[in-house]
Amino acid sequence: MIEGLLEKVRSQKPLVHHITNIVTVNDCANVTLAIGALPVMAHALEEVEDMVSAASSLVLNIGTLTPKQVEAMIKAGKKANELGVPVVLDPVGAGATPLRTESARRILKEVKVSVVKGNSAEIGVLAGAGGEIRGVEAVGSSENLLTAAKKMAKGLGSTVVISGVKDIVTDGDRVAYVDNGHRWMGTITGAGCMLASVIGSFCGVERDCFKASIAALVAFGLAGELAAERPEVRGPASFKVCFFDELYNLTEEKIRAGMKYSLA
Amino acid sequence: MIEGLLEKVRSQKPLVHHITNIVTVNDCANVTLAIGALPVMAHALEEVEDMVSAASSLVLNIGTLTPKQVEAMIKAGKKANELGVPVVLDPVGAGATPLRTESARRILKEVKVSVVKGNSAEIGVLAGAGGEIRGVEAVGSSENLLTAAKKMAKGLGSTVVISGVKDIVTDGDRVAYVDNGHRWMGTITGAGCMLASVIGSFCGVERDCFKASIAALVAFGLAGELAAERPEVRGPASFKVCFFDELYNLTEEKIRAGMKYSLA
Amino acid sequence: MIEGLLEKVRSQKPLVHHITNIVTVNDCANVTLAIGALPVMAHALEEVEDMVSAASSLVLNIGTLTPKQVEAMIKAGKKANELGVPVVLDPVGAGATPLRTESARRILKEVKVSVVKGNSAEIGVLAGAGGEIRGVEAVGSSENLLTAAKKMAKGLGSTVVISGVKDIVTDGDRVAYVDNGHRWMGTITGAGCMLASVIGSFCGVERDCFKASIAALVAFGLAGELAAERPEVRGPASFKVCFFDELYNLTEEKIRAGMKYSLA
Repeated sequence: MIEGLLEKVRSQKPLVHHITNIVTVNDCANVTLAIGALPVMAHALEEVEDMVSAASSLVLNIGTLTPKQVEAMIKAGKKANELGVPVVLDPVGAGATPLRTESARRILKEVKVSVVKGNSAEIGVLAGAGGEIRGVEAVGSSENLLTAAKKMAKGLGSTVVISGVKDIVTDGDRVAYVDNGHRWMGTITGAGCMLASVIGSFCGVERDCFKASIAALVAFGLAGELAAERPEVRGPASFKVCFFDELYNLTEEKIRAGMKYSLA
Repeated sequence: MIEGLLEKVRSQKPLVHHITNIVTVNDCANVTLAIGALPVMAHALEEVEDMVSAASSLVLNIGTLTPKQVEAMIKAGKKANELGVPVVLDPVGAGATPLRTESARRILKEVKVSVVKGNSAEIGVLAGAGGEIRGVEAVGSSENLLTAAKKMAKGLGSTVVISGVKDIVTDGDRVAYVDNGHRWMGTITGAGCMLASVIGSFCGVERDCFKASIAALVAFGLAGELAAERPEVRGPASFKVCFFDELYNLTEEKIRAGMKYSLA
Repeated sequence: MIEGLLEKVRSQKPLVHHITNIVTVNDCANVTLAIGALPVMAHALEEVEDMVSAASSLVLNIGTLTPKQVEAMIKAGKKANELGVPVVLDPVGAGATPLRTESARRILKEVKVSVVKGNSAEIGVLAGAGGEIRGVEAVGSSENLLTAAKKMAKGLGSTVVISGVKDIVTDGDRVAYVDNGHRWMGTITGAGCMLASVIGSFCGVERDCFKASIAALVAFGLAGELAAERPEVRGPASFKVCFFDELYNLTEEKIRAGMKYSLA
């Protein structure tokens, strides 16, 4: 199902327009390059429409949002919709403050989003299933999460991705689980943001965003596993170096050998 | 005096709300994770009160300040004061421009700050003892610095931390010196910012901020020393990787064995 | 021609004031430190004039520009002109959106810029020779580029630097080619931004910006070559660590042995 998608990213080099947070923006750019796509970051209201017009996908991340930045996201998102450019939303910290929850909801209302990617608390809150969040980290989630996520995906016409030890992907009809990944990934800031960039990279070459999301989760998680095996890893920072390197060194062959996903 | 505090950070995982600069924000987040706390960065006026309400401490850093950001700092700081959440101020570049000096003074006037952490020039300027700064780096300081810092601490009811080869900590009555640290730490940008994040992490679990600051300085400096011993270190960037790893790998035992501080 | 300039940077430690993008700002600060200069980042309209007054050079980078940031750049740039502080402009993404093209042109009109540094598309667009850009990456350029760049340099009274596999430097009369560099440098985000910081560092100690630019290109490219030889390099992230380390470890001797430039 995901065969050949990595090669497609590398040959087509899709331009992934990000409007994202100030914390992990450099990592998002580097992860996009490492997977084989081309990142561009642009958030000025005066240029987001122009920039997204040249892009193959748009990634919106509210990690350090301001109302003005949300305006730019909606402007870019509407233009993306007009042009058929897929939009990925990472609702960082939805549930942590009203500004975050309301902004995520507003974006979902005004922009047709292709993929919503969050942790269990973020998706739980947006899907109406509840969830507990501290800052931007999920600390509790609902047992009804899958049901709520399927309903949310159906309602939005989107793919919903819930990242976690076992990632869940659903477009309302189909459901997939991805088991790739490693606990080291939770020791660095912004793993979730970087995942959204990789999802954006795959959505830039594969318009079935359910498929693209699975491919991204597999590639991202597998790079984490391969990095964790490296003898250089002595802590989060050396892991991070290896992780970026392994993403860059991924091949279709490694993916075939290491992918762990199942369709429900 | 500082025994057990690192374990407390790791078991309680305090949420450390940062309003900080765009240069070192990623490092601040990663250093907070490495020491065992949970970082969150949020600067929108519309959410800072909500975010700090969930936090165990608040770190304010004026490294790339704007007047609007200072408003957000004061709003968050006042809310923190209301809730008894300790506030750490890093007055980056105070003395370098009037905006920085005046903003630092304004924050100290309007917000009850638990810890002010700066280099000798920054503290010298704010304590009225003079000091010379180039950009954000101290190039000269007063001999009367300790006296002025003690007076400043007394007046503010705060702990004052002067980072340097020998760090000074005072709450106006007590004075401590910390000798942990390594010259490599001066070769990377943002060591001071990261230190403030670590102080914020310890203040999140220990309300005697004099103690918390000593613990932070010891942990931070010791990680630097341990990193400097690593054979992987060939320059500032490999040192930085090792430094983050060593912070993550710190234990109470290593701290007992390596701490170098004295009470005056 | 470039002999002794690295040592001059290291002994004088010029303060390099940056107004730059949120993506690579940390790397720009670290690269400035690694080459031996002192970085400071400050973009508030209320302080840019004060900050640039203490600086030895000013680096303007429009990678994530906003109209307000461009105002700050122009304000800082005019003050720099008044004081004789050299200004380096990195017109990131000129040609990609009207906002970028127009802002770059406006800065060039209102500020006397000492060095304009861009890729072939950015310079092509600004020099009126055409050029194709995707996001911020050059994908096509004109054959008339050198002629146009010379004319542009002459018209502006600036040095124009076109970075690429073979870098071109011209002040309208003189032309130089620099062959130092390595393909790994294209696998990390922000190599161009970092180059501008290094050019700014050299312009801080050598007012012949044609010379300073050649010295910067040689040092930057040579550090890339030396890093690429390191056995630790397994991908872009480990390369980046080595690259920063090698910049820090550069010596006049290594430069004499490894420099590859020619005057046309």
